[in-house]
Parts: sequence; structure tokens; C-alpha cells
Amino acid sequence: MPQGQPSVVPDDGLTTRQRRNRPLVFVHTGPGKGKSTAAFGLALRAWNQGWPIGVFQFVKSAKWKVGEENALRTLGASGEGGSVDWFKMGEGWSWVQRDRQFSNEEAAREGWEQVKRDLAAERYKLYVLDEFAYPLHWGWVDTDEVISVLRDRPGNQHVVITGRNAPAALVGFADLVTEMTKVKHPMDAGQKGQRGIEW
Amino acid sequence: MPQGQPSVVPDDGLTTRQRRNRPLVFVHTGPGKGKSTAAFGLALRAWNQGWPIGVFQFVKSAKWKVGEENALRTLGASGEGGSVDWFKMGEGWSWVQRDRQFSNEEAAREGWEQVKRDLAAERYKLYVLDEFAYPLHWGWVDTDEVISVLRDRPGNQHVVITGRNAPAALVGFADLVTEMTKVKHPMDAGQKGQRGIEW
Repeated sequence: MPQGQPSVVPDDGLTTRQRRNRPLVFVHTGPGKGKSTAAFGLALRAWNQGWPIGVFQFVKSAKWKVGEENALRTLGASGEGGSVDWFKMGEGWSWVQRDRQFSNEEAAREGWEQVKRDLAAERYKLYVLDEFAYPLHWGWVDTDEVISVLRDRPGNQHVVITGRNAPAALVGFADLVTEMTKVKHPMDAGQKGQRGIEW
Repeated sequence: MPQGQPSVVPDDGLTTRQRRNRPLVFVHTGPGKGKSTAAFGLALRAWNQGWPIGVFQFVKSAKWKVGEENALRTLGASGEGGSVDWFKMGEGWSWVQRDRQFSNEEAAREGWEQVKRDLAAERYKLYVLDEFAYPLHWGWVDTDEVISVLRDRPGNQHVVITGRNAPAALVGFADLVTEMTKVKHPMDAGQKGQRGIEW
């Protein structure tokens, strides 16, 4: 946990308080575990501050992240802390007509369009764009446009983007980037994922 | 999220199910962000499985981790999911007499003694030993003894240890090790920590 004095004081015309409350873009990338998990952990702090939270899951999964989803939904409904909205790609983009079939690529683009609308409306104070690095890496969503939208977003909205292959331009733009490196994983030793640990 | 087939199948005499449900030791180390945050994210999954969770914070902090603590306590008290016990070093080891003054070193040792008792009693199914790598690194608690106790722990108890300088022997012993690498941090650009983000 970083504390104390920053290593440099920038000549940006901002007061310490203005700089402190600057909205941030986080990127959690790299081949190791914990990218999404740390994003949901961050959401716990946001919830504790009473912030409205929007989670957008950009990669379809058989197991999704039911543990984190149930926990954050329970917190959002607890009557304390902030609210939690949780959207799953394809099956879960609630604004997409249920009777239409979308490709994964279309669904990812639809998701990003919704994030843009929410940013413009300042709907949330923390956005978790889970696995969003993948559609960027695959070119389904344009990284330059994402950077432009994030740079110009109004108000005080924090955005966390997770996923293995975050584009270099996004890493260059983000305020805080952590790379999770795999040192050792039990699947290397022949173990499959287990309930409560992997999902 | 790793899925699919493990890369090797070990010759350990265990069935896939036995191997899958093997209790795990996790280490989150390295200089980057997200070590503790990912551990608390893991606790969300454990909570969702109904597991009893014990959190032991081994390094005293002015700010502690109030967001995560409030969120996990709220979940623990929600009547759904697992229970959550949360202990803070020194001021918080609930089994330590409040009127005695302990040094940080004594408090860390007391905390570890309690973890040993809880492991022997199989009190929790997930232990978050937050920042426990520090007292190990400083030699306040003996790493070899910790490894020995973890190796011989009964039942099906998972243990997560976080902290920057995890001893090499612990990394060698653990089942899953993730190193968080700092790529970029806003404090490098002269920004101090902010509420809801750093705590």
C-alpha cells in the first residue's frame, strides 16, 4: 500500500486536492491470476464509499464469475454502501433485445456503446470493464476511440479495464497499470480448477 | 480464468477429483498493486460457497482496509453465504488482552499462534493472512515453521498469504504464486492516494 509523499510534484497547475481526486483509469493485465479479482476487490472499496458501480463483463464464459457477482449484488442490495449494476456480454446486456442473436464481436461493440452512453450520463462512479482488453486486442473495439472517450469523459468517473493483452496505447494512457505475472499455478501440476477458488 | 486441460497429469496416486479439491496455499507478492485486493476478491468466491473465512491483518496501518473490511463484514452478516471473522494486528487480535502493550513483533507472533490454533481446529475454510509476508521477511515469524504447519494442516483449508517480499522458501512451497509488477502508478506522477481507491 503506497503511502507518504509522491516522488515528484508535477507542474500541472492543480492543487494537491484536485490532483488527488482526479478520476483514474486502471489497467490490470499480464498472464498471471488476479486481474479481475483485484478489480472486484477495488469495487469493495468503491461500494464502501457509497459509489454507484457498473460491472460490464466483455468475455462470455461458461462459469462467469458467480462468486463475485453474487457477493457484489448482495452488497448492492444491502441498503448500505453503493449500488451495483452487473451486465454480462451477450446474454446479459440488458439493453439488447433478447430475441436477436449477436456475434461476440457485435456484443462487445454494443457493450462499449453502452459504456459510452453511461460515461456521458455520469451514471456510475466506478466502471469495471472486465476482460475488455480482449476485444481491444482483437480489434473488435477501436483502442484509439476508447482512449479518446476515456480522456474526455466528464465528471469524476473511475474506470478499471482487465484482460491479458492490453494494447500498448492503452497501457500508455492509463494512470495505473499492474501486470500480474504467473510464477506458479496448480494447473501446471495437473490440477483442474475448483469451486470457490476459480469461480 | 484458466480452463480446460491441465498441462501435465501427475503420477501422485490421486484421482482428478481428489486433486481438484486439494487444499491450496496462495502467495500474492511483488511490488505492484492488487496483492491484498485480489485476496479479498478471492474471499468473495469463498463467501459465495458458504465457506467460513478468517482474515488476519499482520501489518498495522493508519487506514487499514476499511472498504474491504466493511464489505466482507456486511456479506458475513447478510444471512447468505459464508461467515467472515476479521482480525487486526495489535489493536485487533481479539484474543489478546486489551490492556497489555505488545510490540509489532510480538503481535505478529501472537497472530501466527492464533492461526496455528485455528488451522488445528479447522475453524475456517479460507484464511487470508494479509501482509503476512512482511513478518516472515523480517524474521519475526519463522518461515520454515510456517511451511511445516501449512504442509501438515488437517482437512481442506485454503490459505492466502500476501505481501511484497515473500521468502523464496514460501514461494517454492506454495501451490499458486502471482507476482504483481508495478508498471505505472499515479503516485509516480505526483498524485497522493484517494478515498475509495487506496482505502
